[in-house]
Amino acid sequence: MGLRSFVEVSRDSHFPLENLPYGVFRPTSTAGGDGSPPAPRPGVAIGDFVLDLSVISAAGLFDGPILKDSPCFLQPSLNMFVGMGRPAWKEARLTLQRLLSAEDPTLSGNTSLREKSLLKMSEVEMLLPTVIGDYTDFFSSMHHAKNCGTIFRGPENPIPVNWFHLPIAYHGRASSVVISGTDIIRPRGQGYPTGKSPPYFGSTQKLDFELEMAAIVGPGNELGKSINVDEAADHIFGLVLMNDWSARDIQAWEYVPLGPFLGKSFGTTISPWIVTLDALEPFACDAPKQDPQPLPYLAESKHINYDIPLEVWIKPAGHEHPVIITRSNFNNLYWTLTQQLAHHTINGCNLRPGDLLGTGTISGPEAESFGCLLELTWNGQKPLNLIGAARKFLEDGDEVFFTACCKGKDYNVGFGSCTGKVLPAIP
Amino acid sequence: MGLRSFVEVSRDSHFPLENLPYGVFRPTSTAGGDGSPPAPRPGVAIGDFVLDLSVISAAGLFDGPILKDSPCFLQPSLNMFVGMGRPAWKEARLTLQRLLSAEDPTLSGNTSLREKSLLKMSEVEMLLPTVIGDYTDFFSSMHHAKNCGTIFRGPENPIPVNWFHLPIAYHGRASSVVISGTDIIRPRGQGYPTGKSPPYFGSTQKLDFELEMAAIVGPGNELGKSINVDEAADHIFGLVLMNDWSARDIQAWEYVPLGPFLGKSFGTTISPWIVTLDALEPFACDAPKQDPQPLPYLAESKHINYDIPLEVWIKPAGHEHPVIITRSNFNNLYWTLTQQLAHHTINGCNLRPGDLLGTGTISGPEAESFGCLLELTWNGQKPLNLIGAARKFLEDGDEVFFTACCKGKDYNVGFGSCTGKVLPAIP
Repeated sequence: MGLRSFVEVSRDSHFPLENLPYGVFRPTSTAGGDGSPPAPRPGVAIGDFVLDLSVISAAGLFDGPILKDSPCFLQPSLNMFVGMGRPAWKEARLTLQRLLSAEDPTLSGNTSLREKSLLKMSEVEMLLPTVIGDYTDFFSSMHHAKNCGTIFRGPENPIPVNWFHLPIAYHGRASSVVISGTDIIRPRGQGYPTGKSPPYFGSTQKLDFELEMAAIVGPGNELGKSINVDEAADHIFGLVLMNDWSARDIQAWEYVPLGPFLGKSFGTTISPWIVTLDALEPFACDAPKQDPQPLPYLAESKHINYDIPLEVWIKPAGHEHPVIITRSNFNNLYWTLTQQLAHHTINGCNLRPGDLLGTGTISGPEAESFGCLLELTWNGQKPLNLIGAARKFLEDGDEVFFTACCKGKDYNVGFGSCTGKVLPAIP
Repeated sequence: MGLRSFVEVSRDSHFPLENLPYGVFRPTSTAGGDGSPPAPRPGVAIGDFVLDLSVISAAGLFDGPILKDSPCFLQPSLNMFVGMGRPAWKEARLTLQRLLSAEDPTLSGNTSLREKSLLKMSEVEMLLPTVIGDYTDFFSSMHHAKNCGTIFRGPENPIPVNWFHLPIAYHGRASSVVISGTDIIRPRGQGYPTGKSPPYFGSTQKLDFELEMAAIVGPGNELGKSINVDEAADHIFGLVLMNDWSARDIQAWEYVPLGPFLGKSFGTTISPWIVTLDALEPFACDAPKQDPQPLPYLAESKHINYDIPLEVWIKPAGHEHPVIITRSNFNNLYWTLTQQLAHHTINGCNLRPGDLLGTGTISGPEAESFGCLLELTWNGQKPLNLIGAARKFLEDGDEVFFTACCKGKDYNVGFGSCTGKVLPAIP
């Protein structure tokens, strides 16, 4: 049987005591002393509630040797806490599992503290959990690489030769990473010209989602110093869901030779709750065998993925309920999180706490598990049937929902959702 | 005759009263009250001195309507000031030109304030002038695009078809942008395999500089809202020199299909003094005529470059003096700064104050004006003679110096220098 909290946690909740994901929120029900909105602060999710860690910290309940007297939970972001490393994360998890358990009276028996620290999720606004210094996006699903290569460059050798030797990635735009629930305005730009005509200009005709997850970096590294692949897990705090919204016509026209730019930088949505690697440990599974053997700096003694079922749902304008579009799994990644991180730093590139490392689109091998509309509709050639309408790409008013939930024996470790609604282009 | 300051400014100085570039520094001669290093603060360069703007501000000498009571010069970075926009920049420039002039006694006649606010350049440490939220690198010299295309992809159609329609760019790594004078550690990584052998792994054998300049973004834009090309100049505070260090073997192997990544992200050096567009105005010149005509969102009513002569010098280990390697000019750019910025935001991508927009390597048409060793030695096929030694790429111990100076009738508007020394790889 799962751990039991004094907070009611329904059987299908994503957030039981085994999970305890971290986020940053602002209460919506109360204003600050001067009437301004209350300051952002860290919290953990438990059932339908958020535990305010600034209150718990101010009450002196983080009493372990590392967190006692630390201001890490009195910050407007999680950067300081995630930068403290695994010993601090372990200590916080133990303290919080004890404080929230049905057995311990410290919090459950203190009515005033309990009421002050436990807020209903419906009464908070979630914010970006960290200040993202840099955002990197990998390209680590072989099925996605193969499908995109076939669509863009043809069926002969669709996967570039370098792909099997290194986890390919590009730098993304940090400023346009937004929190789940933020509307996405359809971008304008130049699209591929047809025949001899000049390039198309206007709002994108091929707006897509990309089903990804992303690692939040913990302790960073100094410029010039690499991180060993077998120590890389200690530099990863946890995971979020990520929708790397993409304008396929803009991307196809601009990406040679320097890679994706405006086809991506109009918005990237992440889910608010960072699920820690500690909470995901029971869902670890073998990662795919790699052939050819990776170079020594990428050869890891523990080559694992996580079994995280992923779903994408779309709710078109005027409809009440979303419909499921695809089902994939995090374990489809060919290159692991730790290989990604080791590769990222092999040249001495410095990571900083709170940085975001996207996995790339997570497509599975079957057509029903592809991670974006480009693949699902084969670049619009095979429209999907979406509630009776043929659909090639996203339309204005569409709401896209990602969700992920690891199923334990009698509990879940879930990610909540990552959502965004498409608004019309600004003329 | 130029403007005259009470501070002695030699005839060949880069920093007369006409320039007044902004930077962030820390005095090296004094410690803080508790013995800690003094806090970073904004300054402007005048001759061989730095004027401490935090002291000028605290003394109430910024007395114009915008800057009076503003804390913008009491910050550890210039982000707040550059975000205030052109009216604030104009006001600051007028105030500083008056305070530093030979005629005004306010500062020149106040010995204690003068001594407190004017520090010798030799007694300060320069720091990054802004917190760089995102760093973007363009690819805007046609000569560079043509040379690289010929080297990497052959002489038929070396310039990609999209190049003449849009200012191509990629997102760079913000964390590894460093200030002039920072050593650069030779990066390790995977290089292109020869024949059927596996990819090379080790320290780069093709370390290069790239001669660039970079714009510092002033006021930003909201996510979703584009900036009109005819208003783009108001979003550019000024320019710095930039060395986009590149590992050509790593870059050549990794860049298909998502662009440059580890071949660049081990270090990017910028010069400390931001020369404002106001100071550069006398050096404005026509930008190249564009064919085909740019799309309307890139068609600007004022299509200008600046006449900024650029030089690269190298001092190999064991030598006392650097030798000149190439001479180029900022006016070789095909796409202007304003077109770059308008393109960057056409999809709604949000820029933030202090962001860095690199121009890409600025190569001229002649072999003596190419902006990197890849071009100058034609990928190592035509070694340079560097003080009697044949040279293909950078070697450990090399110091690379960039400098730039606009020549007025009887004054300069210069950029100082952008330097870095290559250290051996860490095994």
